[in-house]
Amino acid sequence: MVDWRTTVLEVLRALGGTRNLRLDWEAFLEEWNQTRSILDRINADELPWMTMEDVHRLALQGPLAHHHLTLTDEEIDGLVRARWRLRPWPDSVAGLTRLKQKYIISPISNASVAGMVRLAKFAGLPWDCVITAENARRYKPHPDAYQTAVSLLGLRPEQMMLVAAHNYDLRAAQGQGLHTAFVPRPTEYGPGQTTDLAPEGDWTVVAKDVLDLATRLGA
Amino acid sequence: MVDWRTTVLEVLRALGGTRNLRLDWEAFLEEWNQTRSILDRINADELPWMTMEDVHRLALQGPLAHHHLTLTDEEIDGLVRARWRLRPWPDSVAGLTRLKQKYIISPISNASVAGMVRLAKFAGLPWDCVITAENARRYKPHPDAYQTAVSLLGLRPEQMMLVAAHNYDLRAAQGQGLHTAFVPRPTEYGPGQTTDLAPEGDWTVVAKDVLDLATRLGA
Repeated sequence: MVDWRTTVLEVLRALGGTRNLRLDWEAFLEEWNQTRSILDRINADELPWMTMEDVHRLALQGPLAHHHLTLTDEEIDGLVRARWRLRPWPDSVAGLTRLKQKYIISPISNASVAGMVRLAKFAGLPWDCVITAENARRYKPHPDAYQTAVSLLGLRPEQMMLVAAHNYDLRAAQGQGLHTAFVPRPTEYGPGQTTDLAPEGDWTVVAKDVLDLATRLGA
Repeated sequence: MVDWRTTVLEVLRALGGTRNLRLDWEAFLEEWNQTRSILDRINADELPWMTMEDVHRLALQGPLAHHHLTLTDEEIDGLVRARWRLRPWPDSVAGLTRLKQKYIISPISNASVAGMVRLAKFAGLPWDCVITAENARRYKPHPDAYQTAVSLLGLRPEQMMLVAAHNYDLRAAQGQGLHTAFVPRPTEYGPGQTTDLAPEGDWTVVAKDVLDLATRLGA
Protein backbone atom coordinates (compact mmCIF):
# COMPACT_ATOMS: atom_id res chain seq x y z
CA MET A 1 0.00 0.00 0.00
CA VAL A 2 2.92 2.35 0.62
CA ASP A 3 6.18 3.26 -1.06
CA TRP A 4 8.54 2.53 1.83
CA ARG A 5 11.80 2.79 -0.12
CA THR A 6 11.52 6.35 -1.42
CA THR A 7 10.80 7.83 2.00
CA VAL A 8 13.41 5.80 3.86
CA LEU A 9 16.02 6.78 1.26
CA GLU A 10 15.04 10.44 1.63
CA VAL A 11 15.46 10.21 5.40
CA LEU A 12 18.82 8.46 5.05
CA ARG A 13 20.03 11.09 2.56
CA ALA A 14 18.78 13.90 4.79
CA LEU A 15 20.80 12.42 7.64
CA GLY A 16 23.79 12.17 5.30
CA GLY A 17 23.37 15.83 4.44
CA THR A 18 23.15 16.89 8.08
CA ARG A 19 26.15 14.82 9.07
CA ASN A 20 28.06 15.63 5.88
CA LEU A 21 28.52 11.94 5.01
CA ARG A 22 29.32 10.61 1.56
CA LEU A 23 27.79 7.14 1.32
CA ASP A 24 26.00 4.89 -1.17
CA TRP A 25 22.65 5.12 0.63
CA GLU A 26 20.95 2.74 -1.79
CA ALA A 27 23.46 0.05 -0.91
CA PHE A 28 23.17 0.96 2.77
CA LEU A 29 19.38 0.56 2.63
CA GLU A 30 19.63 -2.76 0.82
CA GLU A 31 21.89 -4.07 3.59
CA TRP A 32 19.63 -2.62 6.29
CA ASN A 33 16.66 -4.33 4.69
CA GLN A 34 18.14 -7.81 5.24
CA THR A 35 15.87 -8.61 8.17
CA ARG A 36 14.74 -12.08 7.10
CA SER A 37 17.28 -14.00 9.17
CA ILE A 38 16.28 -12.03 12.29
CA LEU A 39 12.57 -12.69 11.66
CA ASP A 40 13.27 -16.40 11.10
CA ARG A 41 15.20 -16.61 14.36
CA ILE A 42 12.32 -14.93 16.22
CA ASN A 43 9.86 -17.38 14.62
CA ALA A 44 12.12 -20.24 15.73
CA ASP A 45 12.32 -18.84 19.30
CA GLU A 46 16.08 -18.37 18.89
CA LEU A 47 15.52 -14.68 19.58
CA PRO A 48 12.86 -13.26 21.92
CA TRP A 49 9.81 -11.57 20.40
CA MET A 50 10.53 -8.01 19.35
CA THR A 51 8.58 -5.49 17.30
CA MET A 52 9.63 -4.51 13.80
CA GLU A 53 11.07 -1.28 15.20
CA ASP A 54 13.49 -3.33 17.30
CA VAL A 55 14.18 -5.66 14.35
CA HIS A 56 15.14 -2.61 12.30
CA ARG A 57 17.31 -1.33 15.14
CA LEU A 58 19.10 -4.68 15.31
CA ALA A 59 19.44 -4.96 11.51
CA LEU A 60 20.96 -1.50 11.39
CA GLN A 61 24.05 -2.69 13.26
CA GLY A 62 25.42 -4.52 10.21
CA PRO A 63 25.47 -1.63 7.72
CA LEU A 64 26.54 0.84 10.43
CA ALA A 65 29.61 -1.28 11.19
CA HIS A 66 30.24 -2.01 7.53
CA HIS A 67 30.19 1.69 6.64
CA HIS A 68 32.11 2.72 9.81
CA LEU A 69 29.22 4.89 10.90
CA THR A 70 28.13 5.77 14.45
CA LEU A 71 24.70 7.25 15.07
CA THR A 72 23.10 8.64 18.19
CA ASP A 73 20.03 6.92 19.67
CA GLU A 74 17.99 9.87 18.46
CA GLU A 75 19.28 9.51 14.89
CA ILE A 76 18.55 5.77 14.97
CA ASP A 77 15.01 6.46 16.25
CA GLY A 78 14.54 8.92 13.39
CA LEU A 79 15.58 6.32 10.83
CA VAL A 80 13.43 3.56 12.36
CA ARG A 81 10.38 5.81 12.63
CA ALA A 82 10.70 6.93 9.02
CA ARG A 83 8.55 3.87 8.29
CA TRP A 84 5.67 5.47 10.21
CA ARG A 85 5.51 8.21 7.57
CA LEU A 86 5.47 6.49 4.18
CA ARG A 87 3.58 7.82 1.18
CA PRO A 88 0.81 5.61 -0.18
CA TRP A 89 1.01 4.51 -3.82
CA PRO A 90 -1.27 6.77 -5.92
CA ASP A 91 -4.06 4.14 -6.10
CA SER A 92 -3.95 2.88 -2.49
CA VAL A 93 -6.24 5.25 -0.59
CA ALA A 94 -8.87 5.47 -3.36
CA GLY A 95 -8.79 1.70 -3.88
CA LEU A 96 -9.07 0.88 -0.18
CA THR A 97 -11.88 3.40 0.22
CA ARG A 98 -13.85 1.57 -2.47
CA LEU A 99 -13.03 -1.88 -1.05
CA LYS A 100 -14.13 -0.71 2.41
CA GLN A 101 -17.66 -0.08 1.14
CA LYS A 102 -18.10 -3.79 0.48
CA TYR A 103 -15.51 -5.59 2.63
CA ILE A 104 -13.77 -5.43 5.98
CA ILE A 105 -10.26 -4.19 5.22
CA SER A 106 -7.28 -4.77 7.52
CA PRO A 107 -3.54 -4.85 7.10
CA ILE A 108 -1.76 -8.04 8.05
CA SER A 109 1.70 -6.59 8.03
CA ASN A 110 4.95 -7.59 9.68
CA ALA A 111 5.01 -4.06 11.10
CA SER A 112 4.14 -3.40 14.72
CA VAL A 113 0.57 -2.43 15.60
CA ALA A 114 1.84 0.94 16.83
CA GLY A 115 3.75 1.47 13.59
CA MET A 116 0.82 0.49 11.39
CA VAL A 117 -1.58 2.74 13.32
CA ARG A 118 0.74 5.72 12.92
CA LEU A 119 1.35 4.90 9.27
CA ALA A 120 -2.38 4.59 8.58
CA LYS A 121 -2.98 7.98 10.17
CA PHE A 122 -0.13 9.59 8.23
CA ALA A 123 -1.01 8.05 4.88
CA GLY A 124 -4.81 8.14 5.27
CA LEU A 125 -5.22 4.37 4.89
CA PRO A 126 -8.85 3.79 5.96
CA TRP A 127 -8.48 0.37 7.64
CA ASP A 128 -11.44 -1.07 9.54
CA CYS A 129 -8.95 -2.44 12.06
CA VAL A 130 -5.22 -3.01 12.35
CA ILE A 131 -3.97 -6.59 12.63
CA THR A 132 -0.28 -7.35 12.30
CA ALA A 133 2.24 -10.08 12.97
CA GLU A 134 2.54 -8.58 16.46
CA ASN A 135 -0.91 -9.94 17.33
CA ALA A 136 0.46 -13.44 16.73
CA ARG A 137 4.01 -12.68 17.90
CA ARG A 138 5.11 -14.59 14.80
CA TYR A 139 6.33 -12.98 11.60
CA LYS A 140 4.97 -13.80 8.16
CA PRO A 141 5.18 -16.23 6.49
CA HIS A 142 4.67 -18.18 9.75
CA PRO A 143 1.16 -19.75 9.63
CA ASP A 144 0.24 -18.23 13.03
CA ALA A 145 0.39 -14.71 11.56
CA TYR A 146 -2.40 -15.56 9.10
CA GLN A 147 -4.37 -17.80 11.48
CA THR A 148 -4.40 -15.11 14.16
CA ALA A 149 -6.01 -12.70 11.67
CA VAL A 150 -8.58 -15.36 10.73
CA SER A 151 -9.39 -15.93 14.39
CA LEU A 152 -9.53 -12.24 15.38
CA LEU A 153 -11.91 -11.47 12.52
CA GLY A 154 -14.15 -14.42 13.44
CA LEU A 155 -14.15 -15.71 9.87
CA ARG A 156 -13.22 -18.88 8.04
CA PRO A 157 -10.02 -18.65 5.94
CA GLU A 158 -11.98 -19.03 2.70
CA GLN A 159 -13.97 -15.90 3.58
CA MET A 160 -10.74 -13.88 3.54
CA MET A 161 -8.30 -12.68 0.90
CA LEU A 162 -4.70 -11.62 1.30
CA VAL A 163 -3.72 -8.79 -1.03
CA ALA A 164 0.02 -8.53 -1.47
CA ALA A 165 2.85 -7.52 -3.76
CA HIS A 166 4.97 -10.47 -2.59
CA ASN A 167 4.53 -13.98 -3.93
CA TYR A 168 6.03 -15.58 -0.78
CA ASP A 169 3.33 -13.91 1.30
CA LEU A 170 0.52 -15.08 -1.00
CA ARG A 171 1.93 -18.61 -1.04
CA ALA A 172 1.83 -18.77 2.76
CA ALA A 173 -1.69 -17.32 2.93
CA GLN A 174 -2.91 -19.78 0.29
CA GLY A 175 -1.42 -22.56 2.40
CA GLN A 176 -3.68 -21.41 5.25
CA GLY A 177 -6.77 -21.49 3.04
CA LEU A 178 -7.13 -17.77 2.26
CA HIS A 179 -7.92 -16.37 -1.16
CA THR A 180 -5.08 -14.41 -2.71
CA ALA A 181 -4.68 -11.27 -4.81
CA PHE A 182 -1.39 -10.23 -6.37
CA VAL A 183 -0.92 -6.51 -6.90
CA PRO A 184 2.57 -5.90 -8.29
CA ARG A 185 4.68 -2.96 -7.11
CA PRO A 186 7.43 -3.16 -9.72
CA THR A 187 9.55 -0.31 -8.33
CA GLU A 188 9.12 -1.13 -4.66
CA TYR A 189 12.75 -2.23 -4.46
CA GLY A 190 13.96 0.51 -6.78
CA PRO A 191 14.22 0.97 -10.53
CA GLY A 192 16.25 -2.23 -11.04
CA GLN A 193 13.79 -4.54 -9.23
CA THR A 194 14.00 -8.15 -10.44
CA THR A 195 11.64 -9.93 -8.02
CA ASP A 196 7.85 -10.06 -7.67
CA LEU A 197 7.30 -8.48 -11.06
CA ALA A 198 4.78 -11.17 -12.02
CA PRO A 199 2.50 -13.68 -10.29
CA GLU A 200 4.30 -16.91 -9.41
CA GLY A 201 1.33 -18.92 -8.21
CA ASP A 202 -2.28 -19.69 -8.92
CA TRP A 203 -3.63 -16.61 -7.19
CA THR A 204 -7.38 -15.92 -7.00
CA VAL A 205 -6.97 -12.47 -8.55
CA VAL A 206 -4.16 -10.64 -10.29
CA ALA A 207 -4.79 -6.89 -10.42
CA LYS A 208 -2.90 -3.93 -11.84
CA ASP A 209 -3.35 -1.86 -8.69
CA VAL A 210 -5.78 -1.48 -5.78
CA LEU A 211 -8.35 0.40 -7.89
CA ASP A 212 -8.28 -2.42 -10.43
CA LEU A 213 -8.63 -4.89 -7.54
CA ALA A 214 -11.72 -3.03 -6.28
CA THR A 215 -13.26 -3.25 -9.75
CA ARG A 216 -12.49 -6.96 -10.03
CA LEU A 217 -14.05 -7.57 -6.61
CA GLY A 218 -17.20 -5.61 -7.47
CA ALA A 219 -16.46 -2.79 -5.02
CA MET B 1 -20.22 4.95 22.46
CA VAL B 2 -23.32 2.94 21.61
CA ASP B 3 -26.77 2.37 23.05
CA TRP B 4 -26.64 -1.42 23.38
CA ARG B 5 -29.81 -1.85 25.43
CA THR B 6 -32.34 -0.28 23.08
CA THR B 7 -31.28 -2.40 20.10
CA VAL B 8 -30.98 -5.65 22.04
CA LEU B 9 -34.45 -5.06 23.53
CA GLU B 10 -35.84 -4.43 20.05
CA VAL B 11 -34.34 -7.66 18.76
CA LEU B 12 -35.67 -9.61 21.76
CA ARG B 13 -39.15 -8.11 21.29
CA ALA B 14 -39.07 -8.82 17.55
CA LEU B 15 -38.26 -12.45 18.35
CA GLY B 16 -41.12 -12.45 20.87
CA GLY B 17 -43.46 -11.14 18.18
CA THR B 18 -42.33 -13.76 15.63
CA ARG B 19 -42.63 -16.58 18.14
CA ASN B 20 -45.78 -15.14 19.74
CA LEU B 21 -44.22 -15.11 23.21
CA ARG B 22 -45.44 -13.00 26.12
CA LEU B 23 -42.47 -12.26 28.31
CA ASP B 24 -41.00 -9.44 30.40
CA TRP B 25 -38.12 -8.78 27.98
CA GLU B 26 -36.61 -6.08 30.18
CA ALA B 27 -36.26 -8.57 33.01
CA PHE B 28 -35.02 -11.20 30.56
CA LEU B 29 -32.32 -8.83 29.30
CA GLU B 30 -31.26 -7.89 32.80
CA GLU B 31 -30.76 -11.57 33.61
CA TRP B 32 -28.95 -12.18 30.31
CA ASN B 33 -26.63 -9.29 31.07
CA GLN B 34 -25.26 -10.97 34.21
CA THR B 35 -22.00 -11.99 32.59
CA ARG B 36 -19.61 -10.81 35.30
CA SER B 37 -19.23 -14.19 37.01
CA ILE B 38 -18.40 -15.84 33.67
CA LEU B 39 -15.81 -13.15 32.86
CA ASP B 40 -14.28 -13.50 36.33
CA ARG B 41 -14.01 -17.28 35.90
CA ILE B 42 -12.30 -16.80 32.53
CA ASN B 43 -9.88 -14.29 34.08
CA ALA B 44 -9.15 -16.84 36.84
CA ASP B 45 -8.58 -19.62 34.27
CA GLU B 46 -11.54 -21.54 35.70
CA LEU B 47 -13.11 -21.38 32.24
CA PRO B 48 -11.17 -21.44 28.97
CA TRP B 49 -10.85 -18.25 26.98
CA MET B 50 -13.94 -17.49 24.94
CA THR B 51 -15.07 -14.44 22.99
CA MET B 52 -17.89 -12.22 24.21
CA GLU B 53 -20.20 -13.87 21.67
CA ASP B 54 -19.64 -17.20 23.41
CA VAL B 55 -19.96 -15.54 26.83
CA HIS B 56 -23.35 -14.19 25.74
CA ARG B 57 -24.33 -17.64 24.43
CA LEU B 58 -23.41 -19.18 27.78
CA ALA B 59 -25.11 -16.43 29.80
CA LEU B 60 -28.29 -16.90 27.77
CA GLN B 61 -28.80 -20.37 29.23
CA GLY B 62 -29.94 -18.99 32.62
CA PRO B 63 -32.80 -16.75 31.45
CA LEU B 64 -33.83 -19.28 28.78
CA ALA B 65 -34.24 -21.98 31.44
CA HIS B 66 -35.83 -19.55 33.89
CA HIS B 67 -38.43 -18.46 31.32
CA HIS B 68 -38.93 -22.00 29.95
CA LEU B 69 -37.85 -20.90 26.51
CA THR B 70 -36.12 -22.94 23.82
CA LEU B 71 -34.47 -21.19 20.90
CA THR B 72 -32.89 -22.55 17.73
CA ASP B 73 -29.17 -22.01 17.13
CA GLU B 74 -30.13 -19.52 14.45
CA GLU B 75 -32.31 -17.53 16.83
CA ILE B 76 -29.53 -17.52 19.44
CA ASP B 77 -27.05 -16.31 16.80
CA GLY B 78 -29.47 -13.53 15.90
CA LEU B 79 -29.69 -12.39 19.52
CA VAL B 80 -25.93 -12.58 20.10
CA ARG B 81 -25.15 -10.71 16.89
CA ALA B 82 -27.61 -7.94 17.72
CA ARG B 83 -24.63 -6.38 19.50
CA TRP B 84 -22.86 -5.98 16.18
CA ARG B 85 -25.56 -3.53 15.08
CA LEU B 86 -25.96 -1.00 17.89
CA ARG B 87 -26.83 2.63 17.33
CA PRO B 88 -24.23 5.17 18.48
CA TRP B 89 -25.28 7.82 21.00
CA PRO B 90 -26.03 11.08 19.15
CA ASP B 91 -22.68 12.66 20.08
CA SER B 92 -20.42 9.62 19.56
CA VAL B 93 -19.51 9.77 15.86
CA ALA B 94 -19.11 13.55 15.75
CA GLY B 95 -17.10 13.54 18.99
CA LEU B 96 -14.80 10.70 17.91
CA THR B 97 -14.27 12.34 14.52
CA ARG B 98 -13.04 15.47 16.29
CA LEU B 99 -10.86 13.52 18.74
CA LYS B 100 -9.33 11.55 15.84
CA GLN B 101 -7.90 14.77 14.35
CA LYS B 102 -5.66 15.18 17.38
CA TYR B 103 -5.36 11.73 18.98
CA ILE B 104 -5.15 8.05 18.16
CA ILE B 105 -8.58 6.65 19.05
CA SER B 106 -9.20 2.99 19.79
CA PRO B 107 -11.83 1.04 21.67
CA ILE B 108 -10.67 -1.12 24.54
CA SER B 109 -13.85 -3.07 24.92
CA ASN B 110 -14.70 -6.44 26.40
CA ALA B 111 -16.27 -7.24 23.02
CA SER B 112 -14.50 -9.51 20.55
CA VAL B 113 -12.34 -7.93 17.86
CA ALA B 114 -14.70 -9.33 15.21
CA GLY B 115 -17.71 -7.88 17.02
CA MET B 116 -16.10 -4.46 17.48
CA VAL B 117 -15.03 -4.30 13.83
CA ARG B 118 -18.55 -5.11 12.66
CA LEU B 119 -20.06 -2.67 15.15
CA ALA B 120 -17.68 0.11 14.08
CA LYS B 121 -18.64 -0.46 10.45
CA PHE B 122 -22.37 -0.49 11.26
CA ALA B 123 -22.31 2.54 13.56
CA GLY B 124 -19.66 4.54 11.67
CA LEU B 125 -17.26 4.71 14.61
CA PRO B 126 -14.03 6.03 13.03
CA TRP B 127 -11.46 4.13 15.16
CA ASP B 128 -7.80 4.29 14.19
CA CYS B 129 -7.53 0.65 15.26
CA VAL B 130 -9.54 -1.91 17.21
CA ILE B 131 -8.08 -3.25 20.45
CA THR B 132 -10.23 -5.30 22.80
CA ALA B 133 -9.94 -7.64 25.75
CA GLU B 134 -9.55 -10.42 23.19
CA ASN B 135 -6.05 -9.14 22.38
CA ALA B 136 -5.10 -9.84 26.00
CA ARG B 137 -7.39 -12.87 26.44
CA ARG B 138 -8.33 -11.27 29.75
CA TYR B 139 -11.51 -9.34 30.42
CA LYS B 140 -11.59 -5.87 31.96
CA PRO B 141 -11.00 -4.93 34.71
CA HIS B 142 -8.05 -7.39 34.59
CA PRO B 143 -4.82 -5.32 34.36
CA ASP B 144 -3.66 -7.29 31.28
CA ALA B 145 -6.52 -5.88 29.21
CA TYR B 146 -5.23 -2.32 29.74
CA GLN B 147 -1.52 -3.21 29.62
CA THR B 148 -1.96 -5.03 26.31
CA ALA B 149 -3.44 -1.87 24.80
CA VAL B 150 -0.52 0.17 26.19
CA SER B 151 1.96 -2.28 24.69
CA LEU B 152 0.25 -2.61 21.28
CA LEU B 153 0.12 1.17 20.90
CA GLY B 154 3.79 1.49 21.84
CA LEU B 155 3.05 4.18 24.42
CA ARG B 156 3.54 4.76 28.11
CA PRO B 157 0.36 4.49 30.23
CA GLU B 158 0.48 8.20 31.09
CA GLN B 159 0.27 9.02 27.37
CA MET B 160 -3.11 7.30 27.20
CA MET B 161 -6.62 8.02 28.46
CA LEU B 162 -9.48 5.62 29.02
CA VAL B 163 -12.85 7.16 28.24
CA ALA B 164 -15.70 5.24 29.84
CA ALA B 165 -19.19 5.44 31.27
CA HIS B 166 -18.31 2.95 34.00
CA ASN B 167 -16.46 3.91 37.16
CA TYR B 168 -15.13 0.36 37.72
CA ASP B 169 -13.43 0.51 34.32
CA LEU B 170 -11.85 3.92 35.02
CA ARG B 171 -10.67 2.74 38.43
CA ALA B 172 -8.86 -0.22 36.86
CA ALA B 173 -7.32 1.94 34.11
CA GLN B 174 -6.16 4.50 36.67
CA GLY B 175 -4.56 1.65 38.59
CA GLN B 176 -2.50 0.91 35.47
CA GLY B 177 -1.36 4.52 35.15
CA LEU B 178 -3.71 5.72 32.41
CA HIS B 179 -5.52 9.03 32.43
CA THR B 180 -9.28 8.74 32.79
CA ALA B 181 -12.36 10.46 31.41
CA PHE B 182 -15.86 9.80 32.69
CA VAL B 183 -18.67 10.32 30.20
CA PRO B 184 -21.97 9.33 31.84
CA ARG B 185 -24.63 7.43 29.91
CA PRO B 186 -27.49 7.79 32.40
CA THR B 187 -30.01 5.69 30.48
CA GLU B 188 -27.61 2.97 29.33
CA TYR B 189 -29.28 0.49 31.70
CA GLY B 190 -32.76 1.88 31.06
CA PRO B 191 -34.84 4.72 32.45
CA GLY B 192 -34.47 3.57 36.07
CA GLN B 193 -30.66 3.42 36.06
CA THR B 194 -29.12 3.87 39.50
CA THR B 195 -25.42 3.21 38.84
CA ASP B 196 -22.68 5.23 37.15
CA LEU B 197 -24.75 8.40 37.13
CA ALA B 198 -21.85 10.39 38.57
CA PRO B 199 -18.07 10.18 38.81
CA GLU B 200 -16.92 8.06 41.76
CA GLY B 201 -13.22 8.72 41.54
CA ASP B 202 -10.65 11.40 40.87
CA TRP B 203 -10.85 11.17 37.09
CA THR B 204 -8.70 13.37 34.85
CA VAL B 205 -11.73 14.68 32.99
CA VAL B 206 -15.49 14.52 33.51
CA ALA B 207 -17.39 15.38 30.34
CA LYS B 208 -21.07 15.66 29.45
CA ASP B 209 -20.65 13.66 26.25
CA VAL B 210 -17.98 12.89 23.63
CA LEU B 211 -18.33 16.29 21.94
CA ASP B 212 -17.77 17.98 25.30
CA LEU B 213 -14.78 15.67 25.84
CA ALA B 214 -13.30 16.72 22.48
CA THR B 215 -13.66 20.37 23.51
CA ARG B 216 -12.04 19.75 26.89
CA LEU B 217 -9.14 17.95 25.19
CA GLY B 218 -8.61 20.71 22.66
CA ALA B 219 -9.73 18.64 19.67
